[in-house]
Amino acid sequence: MEAHPQSELQDAKSQDPERLDRQIRFILEIDRLKKIERRTVLTDRSRQENSAEHSWHIALMAVLLSEYSKEDGIDLLRVVKMLLVHDIVEIDAGDTFVYDAVGSEDQEERERAAAERLFGLLPEDQSEELHLLWNEFETRETPEARFAGALDRLQPMLQNIHSEGASWQAHGIRFDQVVDMNRTVDEGAPELWSLARRLLEEAVEKGHLEP
Amino acid sequence: MEAHPQSELQDAKSQDPERLDRQIRFILEIDRLKKIERRTVLTDRSRQENSAEHSWHIALMAVLLSEYSKEDGIDLLRVVKMLLVHDIVEIDAGDTFVYDAVGSEDQEERERAAAERLFGLLPEDQSEELHLLWNEFETRETPEARFAGALDRLQPMLQNIHSEGASWQAHGIRFDQVVDMNRTVDEGAPELWSLARRLLEEAVEKGHLEP
Repeated sequence: MEAHPQSELQDAKSQDPERLDRQIRFILEIDRLKKIERRTVLTDRSRQENSAEHSWHIALMAVLLSEYSKEDGIDLLRVVKMLLVHDIVEIDAGDTFVYDAVGSEDQEERERAAAERLFGLLPEDQSEELHLLWNEFETRETPEARFAGALDRLQPMLQNIHSEGASWQAHGIRFDQVVDMNRTVDEGAPELWSLARRLLEEAVEKGHLEP
Repeated sequence: MEAHPQSELQDAKSQDPERLDRQIRFILEIDRLKKIERRTVLTDRSRQENSAEHSWHIALMAVLLSEYSKEDGIDLLRVVKMLLVHDIVEIDAGDTFVYDAVGSEDQEERERAAAERLFGLLPEDQSEELHLLWNEFETRETPEARFAGALDRLQPMLQNIHSEGASWQAHGIRFDQVVDMNRTVDEGAPELWSLARRLLEEAVEKGHLEP
């Protein structure tokens, strides 16, 4: 095979044993995301969902629902990367319930410190890449981030609807709160927001969500 | 925005309400992958890992370790898609322990039926895409599938090593069995296989894995 700059760079990288050690250290550390409980419950109501399995679910949703992105021609790989990475800061900062105003106050500071420590385990180029992906997701300034953010909000609504409102009822959440907190879905995927609105209204009719 | 064939196709697809219903039905059905327990335990030994969080872990590993793929220039998005999809058949077919010869006998038939039912929930084009991705992963005939397969084998070894051999000890697995069952890592990512070999030998020295 012909040598070209990209593969020379890759070879130089791959031959640095400290580089692989750092990557493996990070990979083992993020195993802890499987212990971070979210408020959302599984559709069979058996237990709360954790942030690792939530991340898998929405990454696959991105693959299946990309046709509903508000903007055409988005970079699907970047969406998926963002979704795989977006909750890792919770390993140090914990999961903040979207309806929890108190916990949200110092959330930004805690998450920034978490990103420094966790992404900092990686080699510098990858630490920077994950920081950028996480910032992009948080600031919602690109079409990819708005679509990714829409899925991050849609999935717990679907789980809630399908578990007859288990998490809403447990925390006394009403219809207008759900609509207010999740209307950003409309900015990334308007058709998915229409669907969610319709399903939320049905949930109210069925008595699973307080009007 | 200028209309072009791709976006016209997307619009036609997106305006089919039955299409979105089918996609959402599939997305809710695969929530059940979070209930499929693997033999591997979390690194803190607190519980067994499930197949959804395992899938998240290896999809992110693909993003971070793609430089170690045996072949250059692989399509990373296809690798990640394969890894997000590869275990879904376990919802119907269950997880077969890699060291379990009896369970492996009818595994292929059970998994094929599971793929028919589960992927069949989706619109036809996506059902076909997921079938193709799953087949590609299973048959290991492309560089992407060999790299994806390497990560699927590497991750439980890393978890086992880091949990002092918890799963190996629970099932009486010895060093030569681990090497035999996982040497396919070498076909997708030789440097990662070298690392795994070294760590397995260390695990034997520490008494976490039977020689």
